[in-house]
Amino acid sequence: MIILGIDPGTTRIGFGVISVAGSKMKALEYGIISNPGKDRAQDLMATAINLAAIIKRHRPIKAGIEKLFFTTNRTTGMAVSEMRGAILLILAQHSINVSEFTPQQVKQAVSGYGRAQKGQVESMVRMILGIKEPIHPDDAADALAVAICASASGD
Amino acid sequence: MIILGIDPGTTRIGFGVISVAGSKMKALEYGIISNPGKDRAQDLMATAINLAAIIKRHRPIKAGIEKLFFTTNRTTGMAVSEMRGAILLILAQHSINVSEFTPQQVKQAVSGYGRAQKGQVESMVRMILGIKEPIHPDDAADALAVAICASASGD
Repeated sequence: MIILGIDPGTTRIGFGVISVAGSKMKALEYGIISNPGKDRAQDLMATAINLAAIIKRHRPIKAGIEKLFFTTNRTTGMAVSEMRGAILLILAQHSINVSEFTPQQVKQAVSGYGRAQKGQVESMVRMILGIKEPIHPDDAADALAVAICASASGD
Repeated sequence: MIILGIDPGTTRIGFGVISVAGSKMKALEYGIISNPGKDRAQDLMATAINLAAIIKRHRPIKAGIEKLFFTTNRTTGMAVSEMRGAILLILAQHSINVSEFTPQQVKQAVSGYGRAQKGQVESMVRMILGIKEPIHPDDAADALAVAICASASGD
């Protein structure tokens, strides 16, 4: 089973693709979709194109996406929500079933502790997926953690 | 010049298409895209399909969309922002230039008064576009007002 994890943002969208066979998981690809952030329409379009290419390469049957952490900055919150909407549309158009997780659920799933630090999450993701080198950037490690979290969910 | 106005929501998205020739404006089509609201992915997909059909029928060269009014309900605000993101992606994919307006700007443009009531906006929209019958629902009248507002903007 191929699973796509997404850590949404506006100019940096982390993605991680894993394969799951029984209790064995491995990373197929991870990284970030990076947008210039100068024109929102262009950022939405570029994200859609890049995401469609990732889906075409790996054909995931389900996806996980991190829920927006309630932010005190509403303008940022609205911008990330808009990007999330575009991402959710692309996933729906590719018939990919999506589960959503809070940052706490993701941390809990990979480290057994909902308040784990960034570094702990990255270490656990590497251990679970057998990745030897450090995972850069954080957004990619988070996206892989979301994919691991989605693999454990029943949807 | 054909202009599409949009009043975003999750289960009710107002749309209004107008043609502008010199100082003469008329309504070509208006109404709402109505979604069941049971499954967000389905709502996003249905909106994308309906919006693409409206664009295909009228080929607008620009669009106006209402900015999200800062809401005290963040969950609603995030859901509407997600739908806005999907709508903005569809518009971008059709190479339609989008301007955004606050509710105050829209009211100001059609009635000369930023705090006009719903009924006043509808009356002014009907007068400007020469629509004899009442416009139902409000979302459609608002979307036509957004289109009128976009016609006055330089973008």
